Amino acid sequence: MAIADSAGDTPDLVILGAGTTQTAAIEGISAAGADPALRVHTPSADAEIVTYGDVADAPTVPVSPSGCPTPAVVTRAARELLGFEWVTVDAGLTHTAGAPTVDFGIDQGQDIRKAVAVPEAQAIVDRTRTYTRELSVDRIAVAETIPAGTTTALAVLEALGERPVVSSSLPDNPMEQKRAVVEQARTASDIDAGDCSGSPIEAIHAVGDPVQAAVLGMLLGATDAGIDVECWGGTQVLTMIALARHAGCSAELSAATTSYVAGDDSAAVHALASDVDAALTVTDPGFAGRDHPAMAGYEAGEAKEGVGMGGALAALDRADKLSALPDQVTTVYDRVCPPEVIDGH
Amino acid sequence: MAIADSAGDTPDLVILGAGTTQTAAIEGISAAGADPALRVHTPSADAEIVTYGDVADAPTVPVSPSGCPTPAVVTRAARELLGFEWVTVDAGLTHTAGAPTVDFGIDQGQDIRKAVAVPEAQAIVDRTRTYTRELSVDRIAVAETIPAGTTTALAVLEALGERPVVSSSLPDNPMEQKRAVVEQARTASDIDAGDCSGSPIEAIHAVGDPVQAAVLGMLLGATDAGIDVECWGGTQVLTMIALARHAGCSAELSAATTSYVAGDDSAAVHALASDVDAALTVTDPGFAGRDHPAMAGYEAGEAKEGVGMGGALAALDRADKLSALPDQVTTVYDRVCPPEVIDGH
Repeated sequence: MAIADSAGDTPDLVILGAGTTQTAAIEGISAAGADPALRVHTPSADAEIVTYGDVADAPTVPVSPSGCPTPAVVTRAARELLGFEWVTVDAGLTHTAGAPTVDFGIDQGQDIRKAVAVPEAQAIVDRTRTYTRELSVDRIAVAETIPAGTTTALAVLEALGERPVVSSSLPDNPMEQKRAVVEQARTASDIDAGDCSGSPIEAIHAVGDPVQAAVLGMLLGATDAGIDVECWGGTQVLTMIALARHAGCSAELSAATTSYVAGDDSAAVHALASDVDAALTVTDPGFAGRDHPAMAGYEAGEAKEGVGMGGALAALDRADKLSALPDQVTTVYDRVCPPEVIDGH
Repeated sequence: MAIADSAGDTPDLVILGAGTTQTAAIEGISAAGADPALRVHTPSADAEIVTYGDVADAPTVPVSPSGCPTPAVVTRAARELLGFEWVTVDAGLTHTAGAPTVDFGIDQGQDIRKAVAVPEAQAIVDRTRTYTRELSVDRIAVAETIPAGTTTALAVLEALGERPVVSSSLPDNPMEQKRAVVEQARTASDIDAGDCSGSPIEAIHAVGDPVQAAVLGMLLGATDAGIDVECWGGTQVLTMIALARHAGCSAELSAATTSYVAGDDSAAVHALASDVDAALTVTDPGFAGRDHPAMAGYEAGEAKEGVGMGGALAALDRADKLSALPDQVTTVYDRVCPPEVIDGH
């Protein structure tokens, strides 16, 4: 039941879970925003960019501290080439987005170093499970945007007793810092590694984030209803698949990520996908040799994934349109980052 | 900057202002919902239908008391044929929609028989004016869904001193009842006909509704920015154009409505369009002779317009796809109104 003329083999609907956690205020942990003050706007800005092709209400385009633009630019470029339907679920945004969002009343996540990270984890899962269960579609994709999401993913993987490996939006994954934060989180919640095996809600409640809860519910609701569901992303969405497995979901689940995540030795994404019984697609966007500010950062190991980028690349590849991506990324970048915006940093 | 493959000559973005007013609780004034209790859900359900192709959270598909389905079904069918981008602005919804909505914190309108109908009229106009002014698009359309919207339109036209003629979602326009309500509204607000000439915000504040405020702001913001804007609807959107004229807007503005509104002798839509210097397009959906529950009601004079239907028809006509509409309406109707839903009434 896709809108007419969406090209190629794409889902009927791509749903972005967009939220925030106070964990992102920890210095040095995330590159999803130029600084911590701007980082809280990143998921709202991401939603605006994929929806409108530009920021609307958000103060600026999210860039890493070194200037690499958000993967939302790449996903938007893919959307302009493929025309897929897109919905953003507010999974704990702190700033009202100028983009349309589905409002289930989900709050920002707490710093995971507190005893409770997501007080309403069960209610969020119940709510979003009903949402996707009742969609009149055959096939959906889910994606995420939440600064510090790999840190909360690491915490959840440890709590579940899964392989504790995650990627990073930074060229050098600050794994030691992440592990220290996660250890503080587990101590505050009185959880040892593996204690939440078979109890995914408990894992999110103690050390997770609200986007994990929202996406977990959407995965469960879709599979309840026999809707095919694919996950567009890397180690964060694989963590969400792990949560679904620990909730007893045995349906076919897949993830599609970028060659940057697959090439991140700190992440072991293939092993993690295998652990959680998820088919994994890896796609190279073809940015090599493009000396352009929208693409060079990715080749240098920044950003890597997010806002559905990996799945958007896979959908482009299936539609045989991947070669058109770099030029379209340039078009989107020139729209969202006109010179005066760059100078404003 | 439209998403790829949207067919024909369509706007980059169609924006629905969706809201409610307590005026709709007056018995007999609106057919936008089977009864007053269900009517408060109508705009949320409309947004869901155009977004997803089916209701999601809303309790049921909006139908008139006799069973004619909401024009959202027709607009959705057109969208499946044309693929245009769609955004819903929450302009005073009382029930959180399962559809994504842009949230500017706009409240439900008061019963216009009270002294003040839209306390925050100025703030709403300011907010939505900024919203469209900053969109990176060349061309937008605006549309409306608000039960009792023709009654509040009549009140505003009178307050502005414009021709007091509006259409109706009922086969027999209850103009006497509307005029009585509007007279009570003007008395409560101490406004004579024409008192608000040149003061559009005052007119909305006293006797209007929040969707008028939201759409007025969007019209002003778009024309501020040199964005082409067309209005998809009948006498309600012409009232919004009248408000823009009284705000000093001299930009080219147009409306596109259905043959049902144009054929409604109580409405004088051509004269109203001429009064407010708006080019008017009228399109016949080709439902004549279709003995189908989704279309027969329209041919009998029900619903007539709303949720962008008239503009969607015009866009289909420009794309030479109008002849495909009736079959697509059948497809959408069968999806949104399966037998068990109909039986539920």
